[in-house]
Amino acid sequence: MALFNKTDLNKLKQKASDLLNRSMDQHVNLAVTGLSRSGKTAFISSLVNQLINEGSQSKLDFFNPVHQGRFVAAKRVPQKHLHIGRFEYEKSLAAFSQSPPVWPEPTHGISELRLAIRYQPQDSFLKYTTDSATLFVDITDYPGEWLLDLPILNQTYEQWSEQTLTLLKKSPRFEHAKEFIEKVNAIKPLETSDENQLAELSQEYTNLLLLFRHELGLSVIQPGRFILPGELADAPILQFIPFTNFAELDGNAYQNARDDTFIGMLRARFIEYKERVVRKFYKEHFLNFDRQIVLADCLTPLNKGAECFEDLQVAINLIMESFSYGQSSLFSRIFSPKIDKLLFAATKADHVTPEQHTNMVSLFNQLVYQTKHQLNYDEIEMKTLAISSVKTTVNGKGMHQGQDIPVIRGHQLKDHQLITLFPGAVPKRLPTKDYWDNDGFNYISFSPLVSIEAHEALPHLRMDQVLQFLLADKLK
Amino acid sequence: MALFNKTDLNKLKQKASDLLNRSMDQHVNLAVTGLSRSGKTAFISSLVNQLINEGSQSKLDFFNPVHQGRFVAAKRVPQKHLHIGRFEYEKSLAAFSQSPPVWPEPTHGISELRLAIRYQPQDSFLKYTTDSATLFVDITDYPGEWLLDLPILNQTYEQWSEQTLTLLKKSPRFEHAKEFIEKVNAIKPLETSDENQLAELSQEYTNLLLLFRHELGLSVIQPGRFILPGELADAPILQFIPFTNFAELDGNAYQNARDDTFIGMLRARFIEYKERVVRKFYKEHFLNFDRQIVLADCLTPLNKGAECFEDLQVAINLIMESFSYGQSSLFSRIFSPKIDKLLFAATKADHVTPEQHTNMVSLFNQLVYQTKHQLNYDEIEMKTLAISSVKTTVNGKGMHQGQDIPVIRGHQLKDHQLITLFPGAVPKRLPTKDYWDNDGFNYISFSPLVSIEAHEALPHLRMDQVLQFLLADKLK
Repeated sequence: MALFNKTDLNKLKQKASDLLNRSMDQHVNLAVTGLSRSGKTAFISSLVNQLINEGSQSKLDFFNPVHQGRFVAAKRVPQKHLHIGRFEYEKSLAAFSQSPPVWPEPTHGISELRLAIRYQPQDSFLKYTTDSATLFVDITDYPGEWLLDLPILNQTYEQWSEQTLTLLKKSPRFEHAKEFIEKVNAIKPLETSDENQLAELSQEYTNLLLLFRHELGLSVIQPGRFILPGELADAPILQFIPFTNFAELDGNAYQNARDDTFIGMLRARFIEYKERVVRKFYKEHFLNFDRQIVLADCLTPLNKGAECFEDLQVAINLIMESFSYGQSSLFSRIFSPKIDKLLFAATKADHVTPEQHTNMVSLFNQLVYQTKHQLNYDEIEMKTLAISSVKTTVNGKGMHQGQDIPVIRGHQLKDHQLITLFPGAVPKRLPTKDYWDNDGFNYISFSPLVSIEAHEALPHLRMDQVLQFLLADKLK
Repeated sequence: MALFNKTDLNKLKQKASDLLNRSMDQHVNLAVTGLSRSGKTAFISSLVNQLINEGSQSKLDFFNPVHQGRFVAAKRVPQKHLHIGRFEYEKSLAAFSQSPPVWPEPTHGISELRLAIRYQPQDSFLKYTTDSATLFVDITDYPGEWLLDLPILNQTYEQWSEQTLTLLKKSPRFEHAKEFIEKVNAIKPLETSDENQLAELSQEYTNLLLLFRHELGLSVIQPGRFILPGELADAPILQFIPFTNFAELDGNAYQNARDDTFIGMLRARFIEYKERVVRKFYKEHFLNFDRQIVLADCLTPLNKGAECFEDLQVAINLIMESFSYGQSSLFSRIFSPKIDKLLFAATKADHVTPEQHTNMVSLFNQLVYQTKHQLNYDEIEMKTLAISSVKTTVNGKGMHQGQDIPVIRGHQLKDHQLITLFPGAVPKRLPTKDYWDNDGFNYISFSPLVSIEAHEALPHLRMDQVLQFLLADKLK
């Protein structure tokens, strides 16, 4: 009589395999953020959609686990943090499924989504002992302004004020901020503060930030929480402003100013913001990210002009500070973040003709890598890509002055009319004055191209390369 | 030559007095909350208004520090917590200053306001060494639902579900909740959960809570954060519901249910809610309160009928649990709150004729003290009052069927028409079936009576007695 019958033995095998699986199960925290309405919601929706619908027409040739036939399946599973909003994938897909399809509503604040990816490991040892392994991917979606706020951790109120004043004094901000600066200059900083006056001035400053963001299309918006206050609405912590007249304030008097003076109250609120808003995000979220994707729309700034484009540069510079672990005094060694891969993705690549993509990447590289030359990013692998999360155009050829030219065709966002156009050439290098004077670029926003069913994959450009960079090494 | 000249001596005296003052400065945390649209914003605005404008026609005869001429002045000073919203006193006063005056917008969530009250101490020792002392009063305004949530700390998911089901199965909730209960009963609790289904069901449950609160005028709304989610909107922590079918669920199977089953996920989310929402409020706020005012409108429920009135009773019962430190297992000895005075104020006393106030208090006492007989509140001083934060009516006499009757006159809220009426008799005891059948009470909402300037005191009923109970012992 056998000690075990076959069913028992199979059960035992399954149990051993399960146990090994569990210890082999891996986990990665992907953080996604974006600058200048870069399409975060569309990006995350597409990334999830490509993985969930792999096999049903999804095009992921450059994603090795798929190319090698080792990708089994992916599904959404309950997320890690119950107190963080769920990323509303279903709502996004419903928007793409409408006829005609529309863009999903943008997300506010932070949200989460967890994917479980089943795959067959490459490794021979694993190959013989287990059928498949699981990678858990936690995707965190958060506003770009929160990332732009991180360098504040390293600044005094005086430094932050000076930096902000420099920005405010330059065009296109200055035209709108002039009156505000005059009002702040009229304040007697050492007099007893008036909370109502500060509430009004901070509201004025917030209105300026909203105008910079939504009307001028600028990227550097600090303090970021002012434009998305959530539960902090009306709290004193969001009622401070940059002080614009440090030049005429005695250093000793500033140091000794009590918390109930204007300047003392401004400083106290800035410090509270730094600790309770910025450091809190840093400790509760940023510290736990393994990989970061920063989405940036560099076509809209190219369309809007030199100042808007330069502002994107400043924003990317600020962001880079948060990743220069080596030299930066921003992070103590103990609380150092662990991000090992950083992807800068230039979105909306489908809004230009394909032969412009090389230029688009080259231009974007210059935006991103200008900083890299000065800093040491040995510990972080970086990449830039020109992508389209959800493709909105088809490519073709048109005639212009008797010559064949490449064109794109899609539904214009504003009226859903089908149009064909050549939007212009993307400059290969950071644009010079000539470029702006000639106004050579004609950017038009498009609607999604085709309505899809929930089980279908969204058309895209290079989402497979995104996945390859972010996830392939974890699926070996 | 004198060692000190007179000026020096006076300076020294001032310094000694300042020092003593500072060590004598006292501090009290007043918490204000309310049930059933009881007029929290009007109450806090009036309380602050009476103190700030003391001397300019304010009527505070029953507030000893004023009566004895020891009250010097009060002013608003910067609040303690910078991350908590500022109570918008100026906005409220602006509403009362309009012509015709209107009610201020209700507050959402939590807000703060700090008053500094200068007074002359009674104490002979202090009398000779210092001119005046300061009492700092921190007023915290928070939703009544948060107080109603506290007993959850003492409940398991099973207990909370049973209690909620009992409520849902009674009229007037049942008529609306029937379909919801059927849907929940159809769930197979031990099957793998579907997060989207839970999101839908919890949305349905939230809609029921909103209907109970705003259309039926009910008081017991749990979990309270569902109707004011703030930053937790769309988070799984607010996506649970009471399970309605514990009767058919095996106890062992329930205990062993994994977190990814329906019942396991509901339980996990309930626990997270208890810890992250309820206990957080308890630890960060409730623990620090010295005195609590609970406002309740008992006239509207009297108008709406027996079920609405009984629900107010249940709500007051639930609230009492949070203050029965002795027997309650709700609070561990270490984290026991320190509230020593509890005021239940029946608001809108100006909406009935003055001779009804005795009945109103007597009725309210029964609502509040029915619980007191079973519990021991030795450590807390309790009081009930019938008040009007902002008086909306004047009293007079009218004729009805040849007899003199007392009447009130004011501007009807809905159309601002000046009307005169006798709203009916308030029952002295908890109403019986007869009372409800006869439908004897005709409650009408009024607008504020007269427009006031910011430096004027609002007309009120018994706000001085409120101040006497809450603050007089701190101003001795």
